[in-house]
Amino acid sequence: MAQFINARQDIVQEALDGLIAASGGQLVRLDGYPFIKVVMRADWDRSRVAVISGGGSGHEPAHAGFVGPGMLTAAVCGEIFASPSVEAVLAAILAATGEAGCVLIVKNYTGDRLNFGLAAERARALGKKVNMVIVQDDIALPDLARPRGVAGTLFVHKLAGAAAEQGGDLDTVTAAARRAVASIMSIGLSLDTCTVPGSHKEDRIPSGQIELGLGIHGEAGAARIAFAGARQAMADAVARLQPRMRSGRYAALLNNLGATTELEMAILANDLRQSVIGPDISHIVGPAAMMTALDMHGFSLTLYALDDADETLLVAPTPLRAWPGLKPFAAPHTVSVPEGLSPIRSTPSADIVTEALLRRCCAALIAAEADLNALDAKAGDGDTGTTLAVAARALLGKIDQLPLADHAQLYRAVGQELSQTMGGSSGVLLAIFFSAAGEAATNGHGLTSALVAGLARLQEVGGAQPGDRTMVDALLPALEALPRGIADAAVAARDGANRTATLSRANAGRATYIRADQLEGHVDPGAEAVARLFESLTHRA
Amino acid sequence: MAQFINARQDIVQEALDGLIAASGGQLVRLDGYPFIKVVMRADWDRSRVAVISGGGSGHEPAHAGFVGPGMLTAAVCGEIFASPSVEAVLAAILAATGEAGCVLIVKNYTGDRLNFGLAAERARALGKKVNMVIVQDDIALPDLARPRGVAGTLFVHKLAGAAAEQGGDLDTVTAAARRAVASIMSIGLSLDTCTVPGSHKEDRIPSGQIELGLGIHGEAGAARIAFAGARQAMADAVARLQPRMRSGRYAALLNNLGATTELEMAILANDLRQSVIGPDISHIVGPAAMMTALDMHGFSLTLYALDDADETLLVAPTPLRAWPGLKPFAAPHTVSVPEGLSPIRSTPSADIVTEALLRRCCAALIAAEADLNALDAKAGDGDTGTTLAVAARALLGKIDQLPLADHAQLYRAVGQELSQTMGGSSGVLLAIFFSAAGEAATNGHGLTSALVAGLARLQEVGGAQPGDRTMVDALLPALEALPRGIADAAVAARDGANRTATLSRANAGRATYIRADQLEGHVDPGAEAVARLFESLTHRA
Repeated sequence: MAQFINARQDIVQEALDGLIAASGGQLVRLDGYPFIKVVMRADWDRSRVAVISGGGSGHEPAHAGFVGPGMLTAAVCGEIFASPSVEAVLAAILAATGEAGCVLIVKNYTGDRLNFGLAAERARALGKKVNMVIVQDDIALPDLARPRGVAGTLFVHKLAGAAAEQGGDLDTVTAAARRAVASIMSIGLSLDTCTVPGSHKEDRIPSGQIELGLGIHGEAGAARIAFAGARQAMADAVARLQPRMRSGRYAALLNNLGATTELEMAILANDLRQSVIGPDISHIVGPAAMMTALDMHGFSLTLYALDDADETLLVAPTPLRAWPGLKPFAAPHTVSVPEGLSPIRSTPSADIVTEALLRRCCAALIAAEADLNALDAKAGDGDTGTTLAVAARALLGKIDQLPLADHAQLYRAVGQELSQTMGGSSGVLLAIFFSAAGEAATNGHGLTSALVAGLARLQEVGGAQPGDRTMVDALLPALEALPRGIADAAVAARDGANRTATLSRANAGRATYIRADQLEGHVDPGAEAVARLFESLTHRA
Repeated sequence: MAQFINARQDIVQEALDGLIAASGGQLVRLDGYPFIKVVMRADWDRSRVAVISGGGSGHEPAHAGFVGPGMLTAAVCGEIFASPSVEAVLAAILAATGEAGCVLIVKNYTGDRLNFGLAAERARALGKKVNMVIVQDDIALPDLARPRGVAGTLFVHKLAGAAAEQGGDLDTVTAAARRAVASIMSIGLSLDTCTVPGSHKEDRIPSGQIELGLGIHGEAGAARIAFAGARQAMADAVARLQPRMRSGRYAALLNNLGATTELEMAILANDLRQSVIGPDISHIVGPAAMMTALDMHGFSLTLYALDDADETLLVAPTPLRAWPGLKPFAAPHTVSVPEGLSPIRSTPSADIVTEALLRRCCAALIAAEADLNALDAKAGDGDTGTTLAVAARALLGKIDQLPLADHAQLYRAVGQELSQTMGGSSGVLLAIFFSAAGEAATNGHGLTSALVAGLARLQEVGGAQPGDRTMVDALLPALEALPRGIADAAVAARDGANRTATLSRANAGRATYIRADQLEGHVDPGAEAVARLFESLTHRA
């Protein structure tokens, strides 16, 4: 599978350089590429206990993303899924550790234990005070005496990092890390394995199945079970954790294993809250990608048995984006939908002249139905005439409920009616036109000025400019001519409409997607409708 | 493709509930499911200008993830890739907007323009002051008069949100949003399309190709070109943006379109810095997933032409995790690798008794090579004997360079030698054993006590307990018996080694992965080696 990488042997180095470059000066690295890949806090003065972690890469943001105030002092990065060398770990220890000593946080994999362990010995021989803490939070394989370390490691980083940031001594920081180790349990689920750069993805998990308890390197899960949606997958995870829970409250860490979308992760958070252990979970970290397995489409859930002292450390501030923070976890709050969503009903009123004008407009549109449909069929789906005729009939049917004697109210009522009966883009645009005209009329604008204001808003929202082959090409010249009388306006509308037949460009509306040679020679149906409306008003004005 | 969802029609609602539940009380929603899906700041008092955005879902964290202090007041969420309804937008405006008015930030898609536009009209009719800003930052289709709105929208959110948070009036906030719109350009690239929930992924982009300028809904790209790695893909993106750049500095926003791993995104950041426009980019936002297209395996790059006033708004603090912050973008800083990585060379010294003892140990291991290999073949790869023999021969070859007269130094020197010549887990573990023994001897421990300290450290790092079928099963009883003399120690080692043949459990080392019935009846080769060592010392002690 193609990936955004360059030479395979440079993957981790290039990624770390990108991370450091984008850190805004918060991170530095030891100058020991390619063998020594160590990321450190730029501001580190070795006055406090150093907290160092690391391991194979491919779990980003772990661990380098957690280097910063309140979490890690340094991260030692191996190649993808491979432990860093003893020399790399030793370099990190020597660079980061002052008189106060350091704590190594190591996930329970043989390579990491051995390489960090030997580096610790060598550092001790050089006079450094070094403690090592092994994380083994994965409960997937209950018969394994020494479980693997997975996403619960982030809780250890946070607790130890906060204790160190507060100036705790080596014993205090080590004890904090060990408390975290003793308080966590995790399980992972995935719909798919991961793609190791340069290799083909193992096609292990059949469609319709999910692996429960798989490792963060794509190791096979403890069980393969039927996949029946997010809620069931969360219930499956919870079922493994629940028997090990004691009474009391928990913090959950909901971790994206890589390629799960944020939409899915948020659904899983909702399912967790609604699960049988939802009431026991007072706080949540995430959902977020914290300890990934490259592009694995899965998640892991870690539970932390909370006490007040640990909570204080877990909520201690850190500027690190990779740590989403410990937040209260509760049912979503709602507030009432505001009043005013139902359109204001206008008070019907009679006006013979306005009624006659409106009836004539509607009649003109109904009469034009077939012609407009035929024009629209050249560039669209041939329904412009019917859409307008349906709206016109609806208006006629409600004409005695309209506020005919109040033009400002009438514009708005017509706009409201069109938005409900016309549908589609044109219905919305005409509704905007009449609503904006009504707003302008309310503010004292006369007839033409109000319609011009409506057109401006229509253009702002719809985006059509003159020459774009829309109704604007007839409406704009008509409104400019209207102060000279309806006859001049009708002539201008007709000229404008006819001109659209010469326009090959369509920058707005659906004709945008039609080839130019299919448009030429045909009048735009919207512009034609406007011309016919104005012409209908001149017959016996 | 299977996804972590439940009923398709509930996807957006469930995801928003999950988001709100995990927000720690920072977010609320309007009580209008399923049609009105509006997320709001919980602390909003309508005293300042409201900044509202939204659109189809599937772009998470956009837009609901950007609701909070300093960015959005509310987000109106449609179904996946579908504009929210007029009523939903109107509900958001009415709920969020006080006397100060509101700004709507709308990506340039017809549905969004129309629905936000009509909602704005209806809100104005109800007396609200509403301005609308259209974002159109996608330069992928240069002939399109009205480009689409993509990830550059986040810059608009940030600028308008910061201006509103600082108490700017409606004109000020609107002007800030319009400045951002005028300052941005974006382009996206992807190796794959996206998976719309409930649908099959369109298999459009052939292997070995990449689409340049595709939309955030999986719309086909402007061009399909050969894919030649991350650096070239970034160069292709840069080549489209560079001709439109003016002199002056830029902020880049590097956006993960969904399923790109953090490793790849960091590599792309590194490639951006090293690209021809790298020197023009003074700041970066990300890399991070900000405006995604579900699970699309791609990225987008937005450039913002920076000026000082805008920079002030862009760096203004916001607690929102979805906004990674505007950070200086520069070459990664390095610091020198510390001194001390090269092991301290001990000073050779002579001691006839110690040399004889050491020679006897080495001879015993060399003599046991075939037997130990045979034992190892029962449970491993049959190389324990050879591994130990190689190390023994190496030690013999360097015996006159060892500090034989200083036992503390000697332990360390042997440990160092074993870590270099033995390799594998056993080499590291023995190196840890001898190093820790040396540390204890330096601190005044006697022979047995130093070796016991070494064993304790070996067990801490290796994790082996008595009964786990390892060398510990012989070494621990031997060291317990050693104060009574070497003969007793040898008997204890032999008894311990023989007992491993009765152990079916293997909890440490490689035998962990072997079936119990394959282990029974065979002595562990590590324990056997220990027994032979002690026995060799009794022959002519």
